[in-house]
Amino acid sequence: MPDFGERLEAVFAQSGRLCVGIDPHSFLLEQWGLPDTAEGTREFGLRVVDAADGTVGILKPQVAFFERHGSAGFAALEDVLTAARAASMLVIGDAKRGDIGTSVEAYGQAWLTPGSPLEVDAVTLAAYQGVGSIAAPIALAQANGKGVFVLAATSNPEAAEVQTAVLSRGPFDGRTVAAGIIAEVDAINAEEPGLGSVGVVIGATIELIDYGISVGELLDTPILGPGFGEQGAAFADLSSIYGLAAKNVIVTVSRSVLRAGPAGIAAEIEKQAAELAEATA
Amino acid sequence: MPDFGERLEAVFAQSGRLCVGIDPHSFLLEQWGLPDTAEGTREFGLRVVDAADGTVGILKPQVAFFERHGSAGFAALEDVLTAARAASMLVIGDAKRGDIGTSVEAYGQAWLTPGSPLEVDAVTLAAYQGVGSIAAPIALAQANGKGVFVLAATSNPEAAEVQTAVLSRGPFDGRTVAAGIIAEVDAINAEEPGLGSVGVVIGATIELIDYGISVGELLDTPILGPGFGEQGAAFADLSSIYGLAAKNVIVTVSRSVLRAGPAGIAAEIEKQAAELAEATA
Repeated sequence: MPDFGERLEAVFAQSGRLCVGIDPHSFLLEQWGLPDTAEGTREFGLRVVDAADGTVGILKPQVAFFERHGSAGFAALEDVLTAARAASMLVIGDAKRGDIGTSVEAYGQAWLTPGSPLEVDAVTLAAYQGVGSIAAPIALAQANGKGVFVLAATSNPEAAEVQTAVLSRGPFDGRTVAAGIIAEVDAINAEEPGLGSVGVVIGATIELIDYGISVGELLDTPILGPGFGEQGAAFADLSSIYGLAAKNVIVTVSRSVLRAGPAGIAAEIEKQAAELAEATA
Repeated sequence: MPDFGERLEAVFAQSGRLCVGIDPHSFLLEQWGLPDTAEGTREFGLRVVDAADGTVGILKPQVAFFERHGSAGFAALEDVLTAARAASMLVIGDAKRGDIGTSVEAYGQAWLTPGSPLEVDAVTLAAYQGVGSIAAPIALAQANGKGVFVLAATSNPEAAEVQTAVLSRGPFDGRTVAAGIIAEVDAINAEEPGLGSVGVVIGATIELIDYGISVGELLDTPILGPGFGEQGAAFADLSSIYGLAAKNVIVTVSRSVLRAGPAGIAAEIEKQAAELAEATA
């Protein structure tokens, strides 16, 4: 079984690096003429899968908008995940889960077990309780050819205080919280050839230097990059933002394509995929 | 409508401070003679609610063990939540959710909206993206008489590096990440009389001094305290762990009561509730 890093590289080669978010906000459901219900989120998600199919290789459903509708919302998400996987797209569940011990292991099992109802190819995780706290889902991902993306330096301004705090103990003493996470991830990825299976989230709206992040530690690490489109970053700036690690960035767009509506979304995805291909040629 | 802090104080006065975790681990399901399925988690949860009813006032379902079974697991959780609320127990959804913008707002709506399928009295949140990132669920909690508990200094050893990192910018420059979160929460709670609606999670296995946490900043803040029982902390140590803030601690026990099995759990809960009452008399 190929590992997640290999699978991601194959998708990059075949379909490029654009990733479309599936974010059934209530205001988007309304704009799309869909009810603000679990059924509305299902219909929205299935239409985004259809619109993306054949143009992009990666989808990222935002779990919160399904969870908002309780178990019925999760049933809708399961149908969307099934459709996305049937279309052979790589799916990143944007769940930002985190916990310790058997609890975080259970989250891993929920998302990363082949055949589980919420099976995805990778899930986003938060490591406020330490990278060590998410060892169980990382091990499960590696065993199953799946991936995880650990929050490191995120795109929202109110995150900077925590993420630039300076570690005062442990092997990365003196570095920032974000840089320490990246260094721990780099050490894990160094154990496998090529792109690793443990990714990080680094927003396209931040400056790596403010977080003391070294690009050299990102060369084997998949990077999930939000912040493009409405949040302000441009495809043309990929290299200036991520340096030599730009080649590893999954460029995620959500609202900037979703607001095109059900009639316009397929064309908007094609347009942005072409723009990204040109910017990274 | 009374706010969450007032409701919590009323529960403390009437039923004490013991909180029973609802953690349908696969090994506990097996021990209880239940299948490792969504139906097993439902049955497990309903039996814990029954066993706790009349003895304790607070329950804490661990969402991960339900999520593991996908939408069917969430449907089981909804039934458990309904039973707990029907028994007038205060329910803390241990979900450790976190995100930004409309996504974290959607998580707040999922758990803190009266009448929503997953309605609880309070939910645990992670603020790796900053306390500012969870402003929307905090506002929703305050508007609905609900609460939140923000992870601060957790009981797992691998958390210490991140949580003792030193802030280098913002109003709490020079303090640890955990102390900065507590100071931000204290400022929010200072706006309402009595116990506030924004709690924090501080494990009973840590030393406050290692995190530079000032007890004076915790006097208006509910504290969710895991780490008792199997993780090693004793009820008798409450004051030495939390100082003057010990009066605000929700003392959570999970495995140490759940492993008593379906026949023994009610007696074990009564025993531990009596021990806690004696230790805090």
